[in-house]
Amino acid sequence: MCGIVGYIGPKQAQEILLEGLSKLEYRGYDSAGLAVYNGETIGVQKSKGRLSELEARLKSRSLPGNLGIGHTRWATHGKPSDENSHPHVDQEQRFAVVHNGIIENYLELKEELQAKGRVFTSETDTEVIAHLLADLWDGDLVSTVQKVVARLEGAYALGIISEHEPDKMVAVRLASPLIVGVGEGENFIASDIPAILKHTRDIYVVEDGEMAVITREGVQLMKTDGTPVQRDTLHVDWDVVTAEKGGYDHFMLKEIYEQPKAIRDTMAGRIKDGQVDLSREIGMSEDQINNIERIHIVACGTAYHAGLVGKYVIEDLVRIPVETDIASEYRYRNPIITPNTLVVVISQSGETADTLAALREAKKAGARVLAITNVVGSSVAREADDVIITWAGPEIAVASTKAYTSQLIAIYLLGAYFARIRGTRAESELADIVTALQQLPEKADQVLGNTTAIQQFAQEIARHEDLFFLGRGLDYAVALEGSLKLKEITYIHSEAYAAGELKHGTLALIEEGVPVISLATQEAIYDKMVSNIIEVKARGAHVLGLALEGDQELHKSVDQVFTIPKTLPLLTPVLAVIPLQLIAYYACVARGYDVDKPRNLAKSVTVE
Amino acid sequence: MCGIVGYIGPKQAQEILLEGLSKLEYRGYDSAGLAVYNGETIGVQKSKGRLSELEARLKSRSLPGNLGIGHTRWATHGKPSDENSHPHVDQEQRFAVVHNGIIENYLELKEELQAKGRVFTSETDTEVIAHLLADLWDGDLVSTVQKVVARLEGAYALGIISEHEPDKMVAVRLASPLIVGVGEGENFIASDIPAILKHTRDIYVVEDGEMAVITREGVQLMKTDGTPVQRDTLHVDWDVVTAEKGGYDHFMLKEIYEQPKAIRDTMAGRIKDGQVDLSREIGMSEDQINNIERIHIVACGTAYHAGLVGKYVIEDLVRIPVETDIASEYRYRNPIITPNTLVVVISQSGETADTLAALREAKKAGARVLAITNVVGSSVAREADDVIITWAGPEIAVASTKAYTSQLIAIYLLGAYFARIRGTRAESELADIVTALQQLPEKADQVLGNTTAIQQFAQEIARHEDLFFLGRGLDYAVALEGSLKLKEITYIHSEAYAAGELKHGTLALIEEGVPVISLATQEAIYDKMVSNIIEVKARGAHVLGLALEGDQELHKSVDQVFTIPKTLPLLTPVLAVIPLQLIAYYACVARGYDVDKPRNLAKSVTVE
Repeated sequence: MCGIVGYIGPKQAQEILLEGLSKLEYRGYDSAGLAVYNGETIGVQKSKGRLSELEARLKSRSLPGNLGIGHTRWATHGKPSDENSHPHVDQEQRFAVVHNGIIENYLELKEELQAKGRVFTSETDTEVIAHLLADLWDGDLVSTVQKVVARLEGAYALGIISEHEPDKMVAVRLASPLIVGVGEGENFIASDIPAILKHTRDIYVVEDGEMAVITREGVQLMKTDGTPVQRDTLHVDWDVVTAEKGGYDHFMLKEIYEQPKAIRDTMAGRIKDGQVDLSREIGMSEDQINNIERIHIVACGTAYHAGLVGKYVIEDLVRIPVETDIASEYRYRNPIITPNTLVVVISQSGETADTLAALREAKKAGARVLAITNVVGSSVAREADDVIITWAGPEIAVASTKAYTSQLIAIYLLGAYFARIRGTRAESELADIVTALQQLPEKADQVLGNTTAIQQFAQEIARHEDLFFLGRGLDYAVALEGSLKLKEITYIHSEAYAAGELKHGTLALIEEGVPVISLATQEAIYDKMVSNIIEVKARGAHVLGLALEGDQELHKSVDQVFTIPKTLPLLTPVLAVIPLQLIAYYACVARGYDVDKPRNLAKSVTVE
Repeated sequence: MCGIVGYIGPKQAQEILLEGLSKLEYRGYDSAGLAVYNGETIGVQKSKGRLSELEARLKSRSLPGNLGIGHTRWATHGKPSDENSHPHVDQEQRFAVVHNGIIENYLELKEELQAKGRVFTSETDTEVIAHLLADLWDGDLVSTVQKVVARLEGAYALGIISEHEPDKMVAVRLASPLIVGVGEGENFIASDIPAILKHTRDIYVVEDGEMAVITREGVQLMKTDGTPVQRDTLHVDWDVVTAEKGGYDHFMLKEIYEQPKAIRDTMAGRIKDGQVDLSREIGMSEDQINNIERIHIVACGTAYHAGLVGKYVIEDLVRIPVETDIASEYRYRNPIITPNTLVVVISQSGETADTLAALREAKKAGARVLAITNVVGSSVAREADDVIITWAGPEIAVASTKAYTSQLIAIYLLGAYFARIRGTRAESELADIVTALQQLPEKADQVLGNTTAIQQFAQEIARHEDLFFLGRGLDYAVALEGSLKLKEITYIHSEAYAAGELKHGTLALIEEGVPVISLATQEAIYDKMVSNIIEVKARGAHVLGLALEGDQELHKSVDQVFTIPKTLPLLTPVLAVIPLQLIAYYACVARGYDVDKPRNLAKSVTVE
């Protein structure tokens, strides 16, 4: 996830681009850059770090000119650095490009271009586009862009300028957001509306497979094969604050709804020919993978809960003993680490202090460390031996949602990859898992599609001060995460229990009217779970049951049922957590608290 | 722990003995029996099971006579069975004996007596006493008993009758409770006052190393070497209900105060020449012990919390990876069990349904199973390969206290035993552990000696509905147990956190006045813990700090400090849990709830 912006008109582009980028920082903020045509050549200025770093550099050397593109980055390929920042240019600096998305075949393209003598200066996938533009230049910018796009696989929103044709800007979209803003004698492109809202409220939404050719006077939409597209402009009534949240009231809700995309993106490029392939992420040889004797998953908070799912998944698929531990406990308890222990650390930010310390402890003890993180170039990503990036994009709300589901996806990929190499699961079973994984985004969309019942239940529990979650097995792991969400933002004292443990103490707390959220998505232990539900029901609890579509039983024992689509039992947590996130969200709204910034908590815990 | 009773006088003994035993069932209830002299011979009737089973048998064949002894059993040596029930008799049935305690040297004595042709019919330690009486019979009951006692090592309260001298009953005490009740023309012996309170309120307390010779007309106290003892009778003002609880208001408080004894008893006979020796409990060869690759500890509720301490202890001492799991989760999650996996199940009652099922799963998968349980002959004890009995005695209160601390002792013994055999700790270190273990009963007594501050704090929290426990490492494991105690009986919603996890969510729940109990007994992580305490203090929490004697720091950061004596860091949980048990107890009393029988909970969870 990155933010792009572009300007063509009578004014100085630099200022407009910078201001536009400042509205897109929620899309990424590890580096930024501008390219502006100064009447003769394209000037480029870029910098690692927040936008303020770029602004400081522009103070000493500004970029005059009326045509330009800008970018704020959330690293994907290549760590955050000056070199990897956008815009990227070809060798002669005749073309500049900003890109949001991932070019999946960039390695092949890069090799091809390098073979032709083109010299690359960055580690990004984007740079191939700039070189391709130069390589395929046919004297016409639009047709050259079309030729370039025909070579690209992946997802992208592109903004392109060239000193060959400085009267225009070209934008292209496939699976990454892009709009064109229509002004008077000036026009704009951007990843999102807030970037241009100060200048115009009339926009075109560019659709997948379309491109826009933008001059001072007009905008021409077409398919990337050149077929013209006719579309009316939209008039935006939102204010800027709403716009930044993509029309959602809060970042948390927006991020909950981004989960289908985050799931899809985290799988992108990692499933080839129906098989999971993490050989690009994991530099371990087959021998090394076969020799793993033990896995420790170490994390904090929500990531720890993803790790609990990880224990089930990996033990089930790969039959390696897995121990999931809280980082602040692990680092101080002298864990038993052998050379054949693989330590998996999970951290959204990649900067979680305890997780980082645990990683260092593990490395010191001789373990290989694999990181699952959302931030390329973060400390955890840099220091780990292997890294699986979760492509969830920046997460702004303190309560983590899409990072969690993406971490689950990374874990499934890891499990399936190891299972294939170690031969612990038949190919057909692994193929079923891959198919089921690929159906998850659509099923997540289904869960998000009808939330009326959830909203009602959230209203109901918002009046309570205590609440319990129950589950067994994977449902227990998900219950822990659901409980954390709720307590983080609603300040309701919620607690999750392994349902079988109820009778060993906690049942004492269940009295008339106490809300209980019971997960019953695991068929193998469904009957046991129903027995536990009846126990709390018998003590007067108000029970919401979470079950699989088609469930005919649960409604007999509980007050309300919410169902999720069926998938493989192992994958259910991805879908089961979504209603729990929504319950926390709507209960928080009902209580009138600050959803995105709960009291006492910070997004990334970089202290111990 | 067993109950004994005896009668001599004009009335029928059977009825008096049965009624006395019914008041002693809290001391054991796995089998019972009577021996009554009928004017010619000694008749014996005994039965496995509750007292009602014995009564049923006596209905079809009663035991007439005016001199008799009775016993209600809590199995130690030998499972509950008709044969192992007391009283025990010699081959000619001339002597009958009831015994509470353990004869440590019974195996040597048994071999010696067997060599002389005496045939044993039970697996008990007690039977040796009956045979010894016959073997050493010198024509005088008192002098023969003195000779027998001189041969015994261990702990005992004995009641003895003989057809050779049917005008008397002899009772002896060493380290097990014994009283003599003084009536008019009749006298009594008993383990505890309630057994005889219906008949007399005048008693002698027999002290260690003393014996009593009891006839219809009088009681003669002497040392076991024959030196006469002069003592006044005590007059008992208690009612029967109080008396059953040993003067305590509730069984839970009584059991909390029995912990020093439970700790001592659980170590008894298992430390020889300064070394832990569990070769009698664990039938594994040194090779088998050396080959253990993984340990799974599986339990429910409080026993699970003991298992969490077990993970730390065994990993630290033996360096074998240990996974502690909730039984209801373990049995359904297809755990990875190899032939070199040792599964340790912990259950006070030995009948916990999920734990028993987990044991069976583990055995089916080929694991060796070691049980830690409080009940000899329980299902868990019978089905496990090896058994360490915790000698806590019957636990009546639903909230487990002395069973937990005894389980911890069993774990320390296990850890030290394995460490010695596998050579993972130096002999001097193991010797230090043994010394520290032996000092624990006295230190536990110290903790129990001054509880004013604890009572005050309990009064304070009784007004709240939410409470948090914080700890790191072993303190976290103890915090979980402290939290469970509190929620079980006070219905306060308490929750324990690994202190390092606070910032990842739960800190949101901390607001002005919320009570927080913070454990800071682990020196290695003391500073980190203090930082966490300051965080909750900064949000207005009302904090009780639990620290080691001599702590000079904690009072600066918390509202109140309670200290426990220093011991080895690894052993601290045994002492640290006691104040937490007391807090739960006194808060429950302050709230006016039923301490011993909390709502919704049963003592032994024999359903899933």
